Amino acid sequence: MPINKQNEGQCPPMHGLARRARVASGILSVCPVEQRTAALRHVATGLRNETEALLAANRWDLEQANLSPFFRERLTLTTERLESVASSVDALAGMEDPVGQVLAAWQQPNGLKLRRVATPLGVLGMIHEGRPTVGVDAATLAIRSGNVLLLRGGPESFHSTRALHSVIQQGLARAGLPEDAVLMVPDAGPEHVEAMLRAVGLIDVIVVRGGRALVEHVQAEARVPVLAHAAGMCHSYVHQAADPVLARKVVRNAKLRRPGICGATETLLIDAAIAPTFLPNIVADLAAEGCTFRADEAARAILPDLPAATEDDFATEWLDRILNIAVVEGVDAALAHIARFSSRHTEAILTEDEAVAQYFMQRVPSAIVMWNTSTQFSDGGEFGLGGEIGIMSGRMLPRGPVGPAQLMTYRYEVHGQGQLRP
Amino acid sequence: MPINKQNEGQCPPMHGLARRARVASGILSVCPVEQRTAALRHVATGLRNETEALLAANRWDLEQANLSPFFRERLTLTTERLESVASSVDALAGMEDPVGQVLAAWQQPNGLKLRRVATPLGVLGMIHEGRPTVGVDAATLAIRSGNVLLLRGGPESFHSTRALHSVIQQGLARAGLPEDAVLMVPDAGPEHVEAMLRAVGLIDVIVVRGGRALVEHVQAEARVPVLAHAAGMCHSYVHQAADPVLARKVVRNAKLRRPGICGATETLLIDAAIAPTFLPNIVADLAAEGCTFRADEAARAILPDLPAATEDDFATEWLDRILNIAVVEGVDAALAHIARFSSRHTEAILTEDEAVAQYFMQRVPSAIVMWNTSTQFSDGGEFGLGGEIGIMSGRMLPRGPVGPAQLMTYRYEVHGQGQLRP
Repeated sequence: MPINKQNEGQCPPMHGLARRARVASGILSVCPVEQRTAALRHVATGLRNETEALLAANRWDLEQANLSPFFRERLTLTTERLESVASSVDALAGMEDPVGQVLAAWQQPNGLKLRRVATPLGVLGMIHEGRPTVGVDAATLAIRSGNVLLLRGGPESFHSTRALHSVIQQGLARAGLPEDAVLMVPDAGPEHVEAMLRAVGLIDVIVVRGGRALVEHVQAEARVPVLAHAAGMCHSYVHQAADPVLARKVVRNAKLRRPGICGATETLLIDAAIAPTFLPNIVADLAAEGCTFRADEAARAILPDLPAATEDDFATEWLDRILNIAVVEGVDAALAHIARFSSRHTEAILTEDEAVAQYFMQRVPSAIVMWNTSTQFSDGGEFGLGGEIGIMSGRMLPRGPVGPAQLMTYRYEVHGQGQLRP
Repeated sequence: MPINKQNEGQCPPMHGLARRARVASGILSVCPVEQRTAALRHVATGLRNETEALLAANRWDLEQANLSPFFRERLTLTTERLESVASSVDALAGMEDPVGQVLAAWQQPNGLKLRRVATPLGVLGMIHEGRPTVGVDAATLAIRSGNVLLLRGGPESFHSTRALHSVIQQGLARAGLPEDAVLMVPDAGPEHVEAMLRAVGLIDVIVVRGGRALVEHVQAEARVPVLAHAAGMCHSYVHQAADPVLARKVVRNAKLRRPGICGATETLLIDAAIAPTFLPNIVADLAAEGCTFRADEAARAILPDLPAATEDDFATEWLDRILNIAVVEGVDAALAHIARFSSRHTEAILTEDEAVAQYFMQRVPSAIVMWNTSTQFSDGGEFGLGGEIGIMSGRMLPRGPVGPAQLMTYRYEVHGQGQLRP
């Protein structure tokens, strides 16, 4: 099956881009690691040296856009934000390189030697909206992992993305690598998203990050495998054997440190046995910082002033200072609530009972499960993965935070000495 | 997002089956390993004890079907074939269990302990045609890996599949496990395939094995992730530094041991430098065993009696005693031919030059690459994986032969002592 032929003639611009990406992929996947490291160093330097040009491009986007203050905030570049991105790129440059790592090696009784070797996924398509620096994160994670990236940022940040893209291409060129290793769609037209979703054999996997509408559209229409950055309908469960002091400070951090990130806790589950004392305390803690609540009947039986939660509330990712609260009768009831409402991203249990913690962790359906710590730690950088292109909540691999070592596939290498299969 | 609600009302029979499967999955994924091992032993015993009933059901299928001798052969059960399947199930019962294995463990500077733990994919959908024993392989691999299977075999083998399914359910029940851990669609209607392909949130991954038409239909229409058992357009490349004696016996095995399996070599590439001597020898070897040829112009310049190959021939998986032959100018030309025509399954290089072998293995786009051995070894059993549900040629994981340890996803477990994210 001549794979490259099946899309001949379809969407010529995407076809041309993806062909160039494939050629670049052949180079990136086998070049010396020092070259990709050098490219990352040059990108970090470029972000620092080109700050003025990047901010100017960003102002152009901001002037044209008619955005809510929330989205305007996300779209805005500052010197500090660019420095923060540059620092992350420096850190990536110092990381162990995943390309070619031997994941397993063994020998069969007939003498065949087998190895499972990490190799780049190939050509990644990145579709995102919001912060333009997401594209830089994705591009530099791709360079670190020997992958090639085809980028389609949000139309509202087109000029910012183009300016950042230019810095990345200069970094690649200075390291002697093809500029085509990070490509960008030629304009902000929506047809490029559709073409990417159908680019079977040209794009190996699409990563999507954005609002629910964008993610669901991509998941529904894609013919290429998709890694979808998940919604974070996350739960913290305070078991009856929790240390109440620890649980109060962890829940406060899990909800309020940054309520707008996907790892923020949206629903607090409290065991009925401790709710009469724990619930008033945690509500007082959080209310003092401006948090409001949606509570089930059992919680309102303890604190009647709490607003009543609807079923929809328990399925809502607030990304704000609003907390759902339910009182549950033990760990199985907590698990049942989570199975019903969780988006399979991150859940936490607070307990001093190790057996209960193990029971909970084994049965949670989510990519990440935490014990006695804050769901806000759900992050590839915090996990030591060297950053992340997103946190995936599907069951297929890669799952959870996806850093450079997760942007890999593997091949089997079989070394024989003339063995014949009987 | 209440995931289980989004398909409410869609295709009631599939919905009911998949809900039962989900309940069974909650049990299989956490039950003691000894219970799943016992179920496998009972299935093996059942296959031996119920041979007469199984052969009777198979005769019913064979009487009704109007099949070519080739497909009739594949459909036929015999005592020997059942014993061979039972032996494979016994071997699976003796294998290390992948559920709960700690794939990685590390600690962050802030004291957080992280583990990546293998956990079953969940509910597998299996869509296949041809040999009815494929369903038993899939079901027992699922039991070994803590997964639940929803089975839809070929309509032509419906009664055989139902009889085998009954043996499997008895084995599960005898081990105290839910019979719903292996479910089967209620009849041979094609609508069940379509319902499975759309069962987002109900089925976690679909495995498809069958002819190209079935596989391509599933890949095009599925909204659920798909593991597609690959076509095997495999190449063996005889490099100029090959040991000619070793290369001749390996190529003969790669082509003729069983020409009908996906790991059979379909195209032989020979370096121009050795073709004048190697080509006549290997053609003589293979022709003596009834093999015929399709050769490019460079090969026909050496042996003018060889039939000319068309471009389509080089893209054809013959699964028969027919071999494509091309003479190439070195390893890069061989790689270019493979990049153009391979189905990304298995390729082999025959050479005594280790540097060339490494160069080739790094650059081949396929899931499996072999050095100095036969492409016919492409098989999960031969790799020591304990069997396989198929060989996957996509780039996403799992890739290559998929045994029990590859039918897993992972979750991240994070153990803290009250850490807060700054």
